[in-house]
Amino acid sequence: MRVLLVGAGGVGTAVTRIAARRDFLTHMVVADYDPNRAEAAVAALKEHGDRFSARRLDASDEEGVRRLLTEERCDVLLNATDPRFVMPLFRAALEAGAHYLDMAMSLSAPHPERPYEECGVKLGDGQFELAERWADVGRLALVGMGVEPGLSDVFARYAADELFDEIDEIGVRDGADLTVEGYGFAPSFSIWTTIEECLNPPVVYEKDRGWFTTAPFSEPEVFDFPEGIGPVECVNVEHEEVLLIPRWVDAGRVTFKYGLGNDFIAKLKTLHELGLDSTAKLTVPGEDGPVRVSPRDVVAACLPDPAGLGERMTGKTCAGTWVKGTKNGAPREVYLYHVVDNQWSMREYGSQAVVWQTAVNPVVALELLATGAWTGTGVLGPEAFPPRPFLDLLTEYGSPWGLREQN
Amino acid sequence: MRVLLVGAGGVGTAVTRIAARRDFLTHMVVADYDPNRAEAAVAALKEHGDRFSARRLDASDEEGVRRLLTEERCDVLLNATDPRFVMPLFRAALEAGAHYLDMAMSLSAPHPERPYEECGVKLGDGQFELAERWADVGRLALVGMGVEPGLSDVFARYAADELFDEIDEIGVRDGADLTVEGYGFAPSFSIWTTIEECLNPPVVYEKDRGWFTTAPFSEPEVFDFPEGIGPVECVNVEHEEVLLIPRWVDAGRVTFKYGLGNDFIAKLKTLHELGLDSTAKLTVPGEDGPVRVSPRDVVAACLPDPAGLGERMTGKTCAGTWVKGTKNGAPREVYLYHVVDNQWSMREYGSQAVVWQTAVNPVVALELLATGAWTGTGVLGPEAFPPRPFLDLLTEYGSPWGLREQN
Repeated sequence: MRVLLVGAGGVGTAVTRIAARRDFLTHMVVADYDPNRAEAAVAALKEHGDRFSARRLDASDEEGVRRLLTEERCDVLLNATDPRFVMPLFRAALEAGAHYLDMAMSLSAPHPERPYEECGVKLGDGQFELAERWADVGRLALVGMGVEPGLSDVFARYAADELFDEIDEIGVRDGADLTVEGYGFAPSFSIWTTIEECLNPPVVYEKDRGWFTTAPFSEPEVFDFPEGIGPVECVNVEHEEVLLIPRWVDAGRVTFKYGLGNDFIAKLKTLHELGLDSTAKLTVPGEDGPVRVSPRDVVAACLPDPAGLGERMTGKTCAGTWVKGTKNGAPREVYLYHVVDNQWSMREYGSQAVVWQTAVNPVVALELLATGAWTGTGVLGPEAFPPRPFLDLLTEYGSPWGLREQN
Repeated sequence: MRVLLVGAGGVGTAVTRIAARRDFLTHMVVADYDPNRAEAAVAALKEHGDRFSARRLDASDEEGVRRLLTEERCDVLLNATDPRFVMPLFRAALEAGAHYLDMAMSLSAPHPERPYEECGVKLGDGQFELAERWADVGRLALVGMGVEPGLSDVFARYAADELFDEIDEIGVRDGADLTVEGYGFAPSFSIWTTIEECLNPPVVYEKDRGWFTTAPFSEPEVFDFPEGIGPVECVNVEHEEVLLIPRWVDAGRVTFKYGLGNDFIAKLKTLHELGLDSTAKLTVPGEDGPVRVSPRDVVAACLPDPAGLGERMTGKTCAGTWVKGTKNGAPREVYLYHVVDNQWSMREYGSQAVVWQTAVNPVVALELLATGAWTGTGVLGPEAFPPRPFLDLLTEYGSPWGLREQN
């Protein structure tokens, strides 16, 4: 299998390190807007010979991406850029006749009048609109194939197939106990993106109502995470799983809650109340007279770059899917989960835990597609495929998952 | 009495409106860096004939200020600018042989090694260093003569003279229930200055220890404010009263606590944790490439200008001095206070409550100096003078004070 990886940031670089250890990969072209990042990722893998090569690529240049896919005879485009570039990369792969994988889907837009009650444009809508064209040309766009969305969706399908007869509710729950030495406050992921996803109206699915939205930080609950992480306050956040799971899995209700913790939620609310979350530019004194800047950019500039914090970070991150329903007439409740310890991921791969946990899943999926264990055409989520081969291969990658019976 | 008022902002403008109604004033020169502000203040008082005139003046230009005092034959300089300009105005008045009044004192600097335990340069140190020179030339610098410091110090002296035989503790306590229609969060005073005073190490006085500092927001207590304001969470904040009161009033302990309320304290802490309180410039994306801005300026730019919020504001603000000690061998505890209702101050003077409450006190003091009820030379605080004439005249101004026995 020949792969074009677009994006050599934290996740993209971890993808190369994980894929390098697997035989299914014939060649991976590592492309980035910044050629130094692509070359650094490839240079770190020189013992793997010429299986990796670096290219400069502008992810927003659809025609340039199509040309590169054709020139390099790539079977698949793996998108490891930020969600702004989903649509041009998705369309370029379709034009080139390549398969496509991503870890986040096309962006949403809130409902213009009732943003906290009704959906406007939903996450992934832009991609699902082209589903027929993908099916017609016999190519697969496997969307939302990171950890969340991604592994969480595989867990949902596994629960439906093997653990439950009927499912009342599926709730993806994400929590961590990561701390960064030397910083009172240092998010382990981009604050700009966190503000974006946490302040967008969260989406919820109910079988008799369809998709709808709520106010930010709604339905707070304390979820007890496994492997020593413990209880963390979680709130509704807009996430792809809520849009993907109900398309392939029968459930009464689907939610996504993010374990931000009380303290971080309070900080985000304060930023919002003070207008510091805004991306609209305002006028402030500069060094040579007034300048225009976006408050959210200033917040980001005040905090350390999370990509560089792996060495100072300790703790674990947990992604998982809580499922409630019945099996053989009896009530059942389970939490299917995957924990990565930052010390382990730094030692094994030199990658920060959150980044590594995102990166391992698309590599597992590529291997399943390469071996034919997973096949399909059209625009499909991870829950459209048989879950067992994925979960077994993830364990074979050295990163096992867990199941906790809740009662 | 001929007065040079420097600063025609909110407080300065309110000073002109209050002074215009009193006969003791022969002439007031209203000076500002922005001549439009000075002229606007004077134009609003045209029914008062030529008792008021406007001038442009740079408060940092010591020689220019001295010249203006001499040209205009002013007896007194009243400083209504921000504390950065205390020292040049204070020195200019001394050079010109004029008396001097201000409402905030020269700035502090934290102790370089132990900022939250020991004082560095204290508020007012720069002014007290020149006390002998003021005494030698027989002129008075009446420092800290607003509401807090100012009226709060008069209350302290009144308690010592008339209400107590011995004082264990004097605690200035400031609280309000002001809200601004249409804003979830809108401070009634400059956020830039609030950050400055709240994040500086608070100073505390104890008789057997002298002055020392603590961590910001230390010793939280809920104080019950009178006239319907009710309980508000107060914390230690650096303020002039702690430095002034012990110089003239015998007390075991002196503190200043600001009724910021839980919510505002949490917001200030968040700004600090995220580094958004910083005045150091950092690099962020601008409209035409990177620019350098100070995060605190960006925070200020995100919030409405408090000077323009009077019309939308409702509620009351309370300044006062809580005193605990003994009288005739029995324990006693009182709160001496002054409340201004924003609706009243807007209707009567067109001035927002916090601004008006600050402005009325230096006008009362000027009148006491003009009539000879208060006399003195050197650098003196409000507590160096007999308190009764001040309190009676404040009541005559239509803004009475109150006394609450605490037990």
